[in-house]
Amino acid sequence: MEKMLWKHIETVRRQSPLVHNITNYVVMNSTANALLAAGASPIMSHAHAEVKQMVALSHALVINIGTLDEYWVDAMLLAAETAQQLGKPWVLDPVGAGATSYRDEVLQRLMAFKPTVIRGNASEIMALAKFNGAKTKGVDSTAASLDAVTAAISLLEQQGAVICISGATDIIVDQEFGIHIHNGHPLMTKVTGLGCTASALIGAFIGVVENKTEATSAAMSLLGIAGELAQKEADGPGSLQVKILDQLYNMQEEIFLQQLNISLL
Amino acid sequence: MEKMLWKHIETVRRQSPLVHNITNYVVMNSTANALLAAGASPIMSHAHAEVKQMVALSHALVINIGTLDEYWVDAMLLAAETAQQLGKPWVLDPVGAGATSYRDEVLQRLMAFKPTVIRGNASEIMALAKFNGAKTKGVDSTAASLDAVTAAISLLEQQGAVICISGATDIIVDQEFGIHIHNGHPLMTKVTGLGCTASALIGAFIGVVENKTEATSAAMSLLGIAGELAQKEADGPGSLQVKILDQLYNMQEEIFLQQLNISLL
Amino acid sequence: MEKMLWKHIETVRRQSPLVHNITNYVVMNSTANALLAAGASPIMSHAHAEVKQMVALSHALVINIGTLDEYWVDAMLLAAETAQQLGKPWVLDPVGAGATSYRDEVLQRLMAFKPTVIRGNASEIMALAKFNGAKTKGVDSTAASLDAVTAAISLLEQQGAVICISGATDIIVDQEFGIHIHNGHPLMTKVTGLGCTASALIGAFIGVVENKTEATSAAMSLLGIAGELAQKEADGPGSLQVKILDQLYNMQEEIFLQQLNISLL
Repeated sequence: MEKMLWKHIETVRRQSPLVHNITNYVVMNSTANALLAAGASPIMSHAHAEVKQMVALSHALVINIGTLDEYWVDAMLLAAETAQQLGKPWVLDPVGAGATSYRDEVLQRLMAFKPTVIRGNASEIMALAKFNGAKTKGVDSTAASLDAVTAAISLLEQQGAVICISGATDIIVDQEFGIHIHNGHPLMTKVTGLGCTASALIGAFIGVVENKTEATSAAMSLLGIAGELAQKEADGPGSLQVKILDQLYNMQEEIFLQQLNISLL
Repeated sequence: MEKMLWKHIETVRRQSPLVHNITNYVVMNSTANALLAAGASPIMSHAHAEVKQMVALSHALVINIGTLDEYWVDAMLLAAETAQQLGKPWVLDPVGAGATSYRDEVLQRLMAFKPTVIRGNASEIMALAKFNGAKTKGVDSTAASLDAVTAAISLLEQQGAVICISGATDIIVDQEFGIHIHNGHPLMTKVTGLGCTASALIGAFIGVVENKTEATSAAMSLLGIAGELAQKEADGPGSLQVKILDQLYNMQEEIFLQQLNISLL
Repeated sequence: MEKMLWKHIETVRRQSPLVHNITNYVVMNSTANALLAAGASPIMSHAHAEVKQMVALSHALVINIGTLDEYWVDAMLLAAETAQQLGKPWVLDPVGAGATSYRDEVLQRLMAFKPTVIRGNASEIMALAKFNGAKTKGVDSTAASLDAVTAAISLLEQQGAVICISGATDIIVDQEFGIHIHNGHPLMTKVTGLGCTASALIGAFIGVVENKTEATSAAMSLLGIAGELAQKEADGPGSLQVKILDQLYNMQEEIFLQQLNISLL
């Protein structure tokens, strides 16, 4: 598995997948830079008049509802529908699921187009699982891991998607496997939008890697290890954001395999 | 006073207020990062369908009209009205007041919902004061300090808000006090949106500190001192922007009190 | 020529032109910072209700269609028309020309208002030239240079604009001259939006420099040299983005003239 993840990182660098992002305003610059640093090619586009053509041009689609509004939601729905029709892989990042009824309603409509991967934090994954009546306890980020796994399993049964719960340990589940990734560093929570960056990177990997669970695991471990290495040189969250991009770009096989800390369940 | 300001910085770190921002596109990433670095939790949301729920969830609201348009203005008005109804503190950042008639018209409508704090540069504060006929001379940023104070006093009489004029010296006035903060560094004017960052940080502080004048002073002095310390290590405005985030995150009581340079009037 | 380019850099620093940008979400922060670092003053504004007033206030206008949609396109058309009427110089950055039919249709409408400068990569310039039937081969970025020059010449004959093709070598053509700028570094392609930054800087220079070809050349060489110098100190694309801003701010005559590598044709 470990060597396979590295191979996928090399595949992204070699094939430079075009990743179409309909994402939030806060992270557009940082996710575009992360995609470039990992070797992919970002596109950001949301005009109703061109969204179908952009999906058709791209290897994968990333939908992130962070700063949604009516116009953007229509663009997202159009893009997700097109991706499903064309068989293009797509990632859903359900930012703020459960926070407002509007977000929840939009997420239910988006999920009808069957995302390939859903990545969120424990609270967001639990909120999604509830839509179809899965029983979960209240959201409590400290104790959320186990409940979130139950929610993720319920969600993947409904959706057939690979589910990725990001947190201190990233948990990736599909129909057969569970993978825990223990990389990353707590200072990463003080940089805005690294979750969104994770989703964007997953977009790059599912665009060129056949096995979507491995693709998701490669993206999450790459970012986690980049964060760990960057943190060693950073003086705080400002320099961490900058140095993560440098690390994504410079990542080498030896250091990646040395730092990689995963367990298969 | 000095020790009180430090206590407020610790309060923000401990309570991690949720700050709802309806702000401009240019600074969304940098203000979200500044809020995180100071210990607060940023939310960016502007959809009419959820803006009321977001205000209700948050400790404070920040409205910044930098890149306004009709949809966003309606979101701002809805949020400001909700904040007033729920008694949530909110900051108005009147970017570009006086530059176009549209901005001035929007600002007058927003001010009807009684912001808790208004923060702008001398030119913007003077433009606001003129709405109700205050006599001010033309805007001249070099000689603006005294005129701006007159304008601020006129504005606080109309509005009852704490008024913060940011500049080489930051001036904060309320019904009883005037506070001058002499921290900061001229290179900060070469980084886009540090005024917007100041407003966002004020949002964090007024969300958890009862005395809004002290809250505003704590935010402004924290940013000014972070800027001074960052400038000593910076090679120009690019690295300054990064290092200010590091300094906000790492600020310690001893260095804060040592650098703090305020006068009460 | 070399000394003239440096003089123009000093003119921008001294006159601090106001540059009105209607640009894409990805680069708003980074282009505003680049304009500040070079000594100019950025404005970002797109509301239909104020766009004419903003154009009238500014020294130059920059239109970049990166994340266009219907509302923004109307703002761009209004601004471009106003610029033409008032005789204000303006730059068109045709991001993604040729990628979708919507982009191409919008670009044709914008070009009716006669941009002063058009800056794009080889693929984009070739797409624009095709609108009026110029014969160009298919887009192939590796072999594009010569074809793009043919396209640029065809485009300037149609438009009368200065055409700037950015790439490993930047090529600037007007009715009389061709200028090649050999500055820059390949790592710059791994930072999002440095092409957009180039266009924004061209906006600053054409706002205060009479000769628009020289203005464009000064902007492109300044950014290229800043990129080269920054790359020497950078650990990857993250730190490169930061250090380019520092270099733009700190650029000195001696190092600029020493690094400058141009040829006149």
